[in-house]
Amino acid sequence: MDSKKLYVVGIGPGSEEDMTIRARNILKKSDVICGYTVYCDLVRPLFPDKEYISTPMMGEEKRVLLALKSADEKRTVSLICSGDAGVYGMSGLVLELGKDFPEVDIKVIPGVTAALSGAALLGAPLIHDFCLISLSDRLTKMELIEKRLRAAASADMVIVIYNPESRARKGYLSHACDILMEIIPKDRVCGIARNIGRSDEESMVTTLEKLKETKADMFSTVFIGNSSTKNTGDMMITMRGYKSEL
Amino acid sequence: MDSKKLYVVGIGPGSEEDMTIRARNILKKSDVICGYTVYCDLVRPLFPDKEYISTPMMGEEKRVLLALKSADEKRTVSLICSGDAGVYGMSGLVLELGKDFPEVDIKVIPGVTAALSGAALLGAPLIHDFCLISLSDRLTKMELIEKRLRAAASADMVIVIYNPESRARKGYLSHACDILMEIIPKDRVCGIARNIGRSDEESMVTTLEKLKETKADMFSTVFIGNSSTKNTGDMMITMRGYKSEL
Repeated sequence: MDSKKLYVVGIGPGSEEDMTIRARNILKKSDVICGYTVYCDLVRPLFPDKEYISTPMMGEEKRVLLALKSADEKRTVSLICSGDAGVYGMSGLVLELGKDFPEVDIKVIPGVTAALSGAALLGAPLIHDFCLISLSDRLTKMELIEKRLRAAASADMVIVIYNPESRARKGYLSHACDILMEIIPKDRVCGIARNIGRSDEESMVTTLEKLKETKADMFSTVFIGNSSTKNTGDMMITMRGYKSEL
Repeated sequence: MDSKKLYVVGIGPGSEEDMTIRARNILKKSDVICGYTVYCDLVRPLFPDKEYISTPMMGEEKRVLLALKSADEKRTVSLICSGDAGVYGMSGLVLELGKDFPEVDIKVIPGVTAALSGAALLGAPLIHDFCLISLSDRLTKMELIEKRLRAAASADMVIVIYNPESRARKGYLSHACDILMEIIPKDRVCGIARNIGRSDEESMVTTLEKLKETKADMFSTVFIGNSSTKNTGDMMITMRGYKSEL
C-alpha cells in the first residue's frame, strides 16, 4: 500500500543543521535521492550509502519523471530542493506530472527558504508584510516582474528578490533597482545575503542606490526594506507599528 | 566572552519534527526558554528540565526584556516564536531593545513559517512570486492592509494571509475577500490550512467566493491563488510559466 512514496523535500540553505528533523529522517529512510547536481553534492556526505539521481539545472522535467519512475518501482524516493520544496521549488511540477503515476503517494516536506535564512543573517528585515519576487525571466515575462516590483514598492512592502542575476542575466538587479527608485527613495535601507548556510556565507546592509552597483549571482538573496526599515550598522531591522505611508 | 547569549528561535509549526536540527540543539543547550504561554506549553514536554518564562499574548515587550535580563545574568536564553523568528516574529523587537544590553550576543535562528508548512499541506500553492499580508490591525492601519491586498491582487501574486481573524476581529477575512473580488474573479482558487503540525491539522481548497463565508481564527493561514493556480480536487497547484496577465 504505502510502498510507492515520493517525498519532495526542502533541505534548507545547505548545512545539515538547517534541515528540519523531519527532512533528515525522510532522507535517512529513502532508497534514492534525486536532485540538481549541486544539491546532491551537498547531501551526499551526510547520506553516502544512498543511490543518487542527479540532473543539471534546466533538466527539471526529466528529473521529476526519473523520481516518479523510481518511486513507481516501489522504491522510497526523495526529490530534494534547496530552501523550501514549494518556494521556487519542485513541488508543483511533481504534483502535476504525478497525475500519470496514480499509485505514487507524493508528500511535500517544507524547509527554510532563503528569505528566512537570509533575514536571520541580516537581523530582522521582514517582521511584517513582505513579498518574494524572482528576477528570472526564463518562465515569466519581464513586464510582469516589473509590474510586481512596482506594486510591492507602492504598497510599502518589504521585498525579497530571488535569482537577482546569473551568468546569462547580467544587469537584472541594477534594472530592478532603477524601477524601484521610481517609487521609493534611493537611500532606502537594503541588504544582500550570499552563500547562506555555507562556509563562505556573507551579508551586507546598504542603500538602494548602492545596491544598484552591487554584484549578485544565483546564490544571492536581496532585501529591499520598507519605509520603517532601519540600518543599525551591520543589521537591517524593520519596525512593527507602521507609520501611515498611504 | 560568549556567556551572555540570547537566541531568538523559530520553532516551526509546532511538532518537534518540524523544528530545524539547529533550533532543537539550541533549545537543548539553553538554561532558560522564554515565550508566549501557548508556545512554552508546546516545547515543555520536549525539554522538561529547563526554566520557563512565559508571558501572555500582547506582553511582547515585557517578554523580550525578561529574556534580555536573563541573558545578561550569564544564562543561555532562547526566546521562542512559532513558525519563523522574523516573520511576524520577535527578532526585530529583540534587536531593537537589545541595544540597551550591549554585552548580550543575540542570534536569530530561522524556522518554517506557516506560509511554507501550510503550502505543503495544500499541495503547491506558492511555487512562484507571492506575498504575506497580516489582517491584524493592532499595529497597522486597515487602509494600508487594504492597499497591500489590492496591490498584490493587481500584480497577479499569490497572497498568503496571516492572522485572518481573531475573537476581537470578526469579519476581517470576509472583508478582505470583498476587496480582492473587486480585482480578481470570485471563482479564483483559494485554500485554508488550520492547526498546522498539530494532531487536529486540516486543510481545504475552495474558491474566493466561498472563502468569504469560511470561518477562520488565529491558527488559520489562508492562501489566495493567482491566475495560474488550479484546483486538482483536494489540492491547490500554482503553475510555473505564467501566461501574460498584464
